[in-house]
Amino acid sequence: MPDLGALLTPQAVAVVGASPDTAIIRGRTLKVMLQQGFRGRIYPVSRSHAEVQGLKAYPSIAALPERADLAVLTIPAANVLDELERCGEAGVRAALVVASGFAEDKADAGAAMQKRIGELARRYDMAVCGPNSEGFLCAEARLCPTFSPAVETLDVPLLPDRGGGRVAVVSQSGGIGFSFFDRGRPREIPFSHVVTTGNEAALECFDVVDYLLDAGSADVFVLFLETIRNAATFRRAAAKALQMGKPIIVAKIGRSEAGRRAAASHTAALAGEHEVYRAMFRRYGIIEGADIEQMVDIAAAFSLYRERLPAGKRVGIVTASGGAGGWIADACAAAGLEVPELDAETRSRIDAHIPSYGTSQNPVDCTAQAVRQLGYSRLASLVGSSERVDSVIVVVSARSAEVYERERANLVWVGRETQKPIVMWSYTLPGAAPARILSEAGFPLIASMHNCARAVAAMAGYRALRERRMNAEPVVLAWDKGRLRKTRSLLEAAGPVLCEYEAAPLLARYGMATMPTSLCSSVEEAISAAKRLQGCVALKVQSPDIPHKNHAGAVALGVQGAEAVARAYETVLANASKHRPGAEIRGVLVQQMAHAGIEMIVGAKRDPLFGAMLMVGFGGIHAEVLRDTLLAPAPISAEDARELLDGLRAKALLDGADIEALAALMVSLSRFAAAHAEQIAEIDLNPVIVHVQGKGVSVVDALIVTRQDGRTN
Amino acid sequence: MPDLGALLTPQAVAVVGASPDTAIIRGRTLKVMLQQGFRGRIYPVSRSHAEVQGLKAYPSIAALPERADLAVLTIPAANVLDELERCGEAGVRAALVVASGFAEDKADAGAAMQKRIGELARRYDMAVCGPNSEGFLCAEARLCPTFSPAVETLDVPLLPDRGGGRVAVVSQSGGIGFSFFDRGRPREIPFSHVVTTGNEAALECFDVVDYLLDAGSADVFVLFLETIRNAATFRRAAAKALQMGKPIIVAKIGRSEAGRRAAASHTAALAGEHEVYRAMFRRYGIIEGADIEQMVDIAAAFSLYRERLPAGKRVGIVTASGGAGGWIADACAAAGLEVPELDAETRSRIDAHIPSYGTSQNPVDCTAQAVRQLGYSRLASLVGSSERVDSVIVVVSARSAEVYERERANLVWVGRETQKPIVMWSYTLPGAAPARILSEAGFPLIASMHNCARAVAAMAGYRALRERRMNAEPVVLAWDKGRLRKTRSLLEAAGPVLCEYEAAPLLARYGMATMPTSLCSSVEEAISAAKRLQGCVALKVQSPDIPHKNHAGAVALGVQGAEAVARAYETVLANASKHRPGAEIRGVLVQQMAHAGIEMIVGAKRDPLFGAMLMVGFGGIHAEVLRDTLLAPAPISAEDARELLDGLRAKALLDGADIEALAALMVSLSRFAAAHAEQIAEIDLNPVIVHVQGKGVSVVDALIVTRQDGRTN
Repeated sequence: MPDLGALLTPQAVAVVGASPDTAIIRGRTLKVMLQQGFRGRIYPVSRSHAEVQGLKAYPSIAALPERADLAVLTIPAANVLDELERCGEAGVRAALVVASGFAEDKADAGAAMQKRIGELARRYDMAVCGPNSEGFLCAEARLCPTFSPAVETLDVPLLPDRGGGRVAVVSQSGGIGFSFFDRGRPREIPFSHVVTTGNEAALECFDVVDYLLDAGSADVFVLFLETIRNAATFRRAAAKALQMGKPIIVAKIGRSEAGRRAAASHTAALAGEHEVYRAMFRRYGIIEGADIEQMVDIAAAFSLYRERLPAGKRVGIVTASGGAGGWIADACAAAGLEVPELDAETRSRIDAHIPSYGTSQNPVDCTAQAVRQLGYSRLASLVGSSERVDSVIVVVSARSAEVYERERANLVWVGRETQKPIVMWSYTLPGAAPARILSEAGFPLIASMHNCARAVAAMAGYRALRERRMNAEPVVLAWDKGRLRKTRSLLEAAGPVLCEYEAAPLLARYGMATMPTSLCSSVEEAISAAKRLQGCVALKVQSPDIPHKNHAGAVALGVQGAEAVARAYETVLANASKHRPGAEIRGVLVQQMAHAGIEMIVGAKRDPLFGAMLMVGFGGIHAEVLRDTLLAPAPISAEDARELLDGLRAKALLDGADIEALAALMVSLSRFAAAHAEQIAEIDLNPVIVHVQGKGVSVVDALIVTRQDGRTN
Repeated sequence: MPDLGALLTPQAVAVVGASPDTAIIRGRTLKVMLQQGFRGRIYPVSRSHAEVQGLKAYPSIAALPERADLAVLTIPAANVLDELERCGEAGVRAALVVASGFAEDKADAGAAMQKRIGELARRYDMAVCGPNSEGFLCAEARLCPTFSPAVETLDVPLLPDRGGGRVAVVSQSGGIGFSFFDRGRPREIPFSHVVTTGNEAALECFDVVDYLLDAGSADVFVLFLETIRNAATFRRAAAKALQMGKPIIVAKIGRSEAGRRAAASHTAALAGEHEVYRAMFRRYGIIEGADIEQMVDIAAAFSLYRERLPAGKRVGIVTASGGAGGWIADACAAAGLEVPELDAETRSRIDAHIPSYGTSQNPVDCTAQAVRQLGYSRLASLVGSSERVDSVIVVVSARSAEVYERERANLVWVGRETQKPIVMWSYTLPGAAPARILSEAGFPLIASMHNCARAVAAMAGYRALRERRMNAEPVVLAWDKGRLRKTRSLLEAAGPVLCEYEAAPLLARYGMATMPTSLCSSVEEAISAAKRLQGCVALKVQSPDIPHKNHAGAVALGVQGAEAVARAYETVLANASKHRPGAEIRGVLVQQMAHAGIEMIVGAKRDPLFGAMLMVGFGGIHAEVLRDTLLAPAPISAEDARELLDGLRAKALLDGADIEALAALMVSLSRFAAAHAEQIAEIDLNPVIVHVQGKGVSVVDALIVTRQDGRTN
């Protein structure tokens, strides 16, 4: 990894291609840099001008009076490769490439040039940002090599003078990256960086996150992703951020087909499967944001309360408008928060201050009269003092500054002293003056009701997840080496599809029992197997050519008695042959029928980016229609398994079921899948019948599909 | 109904309690009225001042030089009743009561006083708004009897000078009502009225809507409701609005328990069941809004495109930021819109204008270069010309006005000529100048990505629903009178619970067949009934004391053969007695087992406000856990039934099932429920098995619960 310090905190910066014409990108970028008063030295490089925008210009990167740390290339795509090479030769340690026309171009040449940028970056150990980047912004160094209008037309200082955690934006899209700054800066949010990584020929989004974490430059991260290119980079940065308690708020596009189309055409990134991304985000407590405003709102809340996150989901609501209080109570419930009635003691303390047409139950409708007399801050303190709440939402009208000016001192005091987050929602459009007073006092002021509730929920969820993760035992894969070796060679020897009779013994080695079975190759064998197994049995054709036996009619269920077994045996074989003439039939599996229970699917799949993923969901026709399934990167712990089950929409179906046994099966399968991710593409335990508590689970069918794609990647 | 013209367009207005002190409500309300330059005459009524705020004051309402049309009462609650009576005696035809301390007060006296206000309004045929109202605003008349800060501190004219449909806000909450105005007015939305109805002692929200529809004063309605008091008023206004093509956008609080608590404590309204409200809104094409911003955004779109609504759900997206284009494509999909690839012809026309690193597929990433050269309006026209799209979303950065000023003439031309709605989403915070240019040209400029997608989806959905409803045959309940009379007397004679054997013949009269059954009172009868019915049978104890037979073990399924029938007969009776000793047993129903199919519930219930509602949903354990059910006001048409089924989340489960038969059953049940709503509280057909297409449905169990609440209401 090259040194990102040269990119983000250089002393000397060359602007290659700089122009006096500030209407074009080559001139505008230099203009913006000069405007913001970079603390280091800037050297324009120009073939045609001796002076550019008041600075002496140099004919080439080699001709500079000192070695530049960073070269900002504002030159056409066709000249980028040569110039990068010259930079490398001149010892430049970082470069920013803003030109478009690389992998996102319809012409093949673009992709080839982009590949070459990556090679040059490696050869010269240069930190190269771009191509197709809109540049970046480092507030502390006042370094703004960008042509973003959000910076060009900025009319306030880069950094507000309030404290609070610094927010870094890292985005693969330039327009969106700077839009977070554009929306957040007027709200006094202290952005440390905006870095737009464009096509990521070399430097990736999570490289930047990793660097900023190590450098201690930012406390909250806002990311916009079209793809993740490198799982290891992601995992390292994400784990580090969680460990340090520095939340990441992310938007990842490509959930819809049209969204994927845009991602593919824009940065030529092959978008991964959205559900896998969501699983990876959940794993590291990364918060998914819905849109620009919401992500800025959540970042604003974390910036101020990162070290005082709510201990739970219970919110107290203070309002002078009954309608607004009720509405945000609904929004809180929709965000997964609770709005409990306050305790009698707190209520009586509140009741002492409010007229009889107000109410202290929660939402606390304290009426305009009480707000005028006590101020928002005292009322928020009063409600926050209840043991029944973990945070407070104050419904305000932040239109005129008057009321806030009157209680300014107390706002500052409460903002400093409160141990429970207090977040303001303004139902009227917030004015600049009230926003400034509240910001100075340390309160996030949010203009959107749902974002306000979501911000509080995100803070509570982040704290809970982080505490669980930090206290969790690491999941260790300490399998016996002999067993691993043996399994590997069995998988090696197997064909592309392992039927249940082949999969079952492999699973058994890893502690996963399937239903008792017997593989039969004649009616007589089947009859005697059924007799041995007692009760009702199932008969299932075993053929690697027929992985979906049910669809083929190659399964008979609930068969009892010798005659019925004989009939079923012939039927399933006949159906199998009819479904797939010439299929290789390995025999008919006779299996005890499972007792009743909840039908689930437990599976695993190998994601090309993130490796083995465990899958769990409700089975039967509802799995296909309702898609109530969740993924998690394997291996998982029993706690992870319970967390996953808790996230299923129909989780109430599992009330009273043997969740411990199901979780244990999920853990075992995840460990098995992780240990053999090199060889296994998919595993399907479908159905898994979950019995009532204490009665365990029955794995009724199993299928393993091995990897046939050269086993590289 | 009293004349609302006296309230909303009076010539002479008395302000009772008017004060020179503009810091208090009594002074501020008059101040705001004077500030906005009401076109009529204002008379302060004051006992203690001869002149108030420059106007001659009068000692009483009776002493005015002319009869006031409207009295604005800015006096304490305790004086309201006497003053209203004086107003009535003086011939005043409308009154506004702003005082708090009525039904929302903890003291009982408040509720009694509120009831009295209603009585006085009726006695004097006065249009009384409030109490606990924040007042109202009529832009055309410049009449603003309100103390709302949103009006007090308004620094632009009440109405913008652009055209477009007028937006009326009617709200039970004062703070929220004026917040729509507060958020929308800076965006050049032409609000005709803001009316806040407070506790609604007399005048209700939908009375105001009805009046404004008749008066032709507004084209789009934004409503905030804590409750609906009167179903007939609601139905009349909602039907009229739909018929006139004037959309209603509504927020109804009370979805969560805390939200209901706030509604109950605030306006003492008994909140109805949320799902019933949603059904009523769906019935009349009323659009549910998520929050203030979204409702204003949707209103802005309708205001401009009410007469050019999109013909379908297909959206073309124009963007210069690939990331932003992909993100809003995802948002469109989430809102139920489609973002199809454009046709080859349109693509080639676009490709002629954009560089090779752009793309014309959709989202159309036309690059900043093409925007500079062609402007947003030409690009929007190009994309809109494709037959594959019904509307266009243009992703813009509305930060600085430059680009919009350059193409202003063409924007105006495109805004006027386009037949497909073109909506702008700005990913940067919109500036006032670009907002004004776009507004003048007739384009809604929306700052939120999701709201932009939602606004387009709401327009498309409204048009489709309205066309369906307008073309629908009216559902007529033309039952034979003899049959109605007979059924009524049967229901009259029945007990509170009608078991299946009693319900089945009633249902049969209305065309709903249940499975063949036989009510048996001995083992022998049961055996011979089972023989007659052939195949597997079910045995079910019939007892009005045991409506939930399954839970009691009083049902046996899949019983075959005389011996098994005898055993089952004894078992279900024994279980019934054990479950409820002394239960009145009417016999054991022997019933043919239904063939396999999809298990549904079809039911009806009587809502205290809206009367008979039909319910449909997926059955079994999933009904309880997933709550995938929908309601509709009865009676419904077959088209309504299909629309309901289409709205179920798991609708794909019904692929290939006999939807026509299910719809027919729903229609019949809805007609039955509507015809006998006076007598029936609930009907449960559960389960209804829906077989494959052409094979119909089997109603496997039926239960009717009659009303025991005095049959009034």
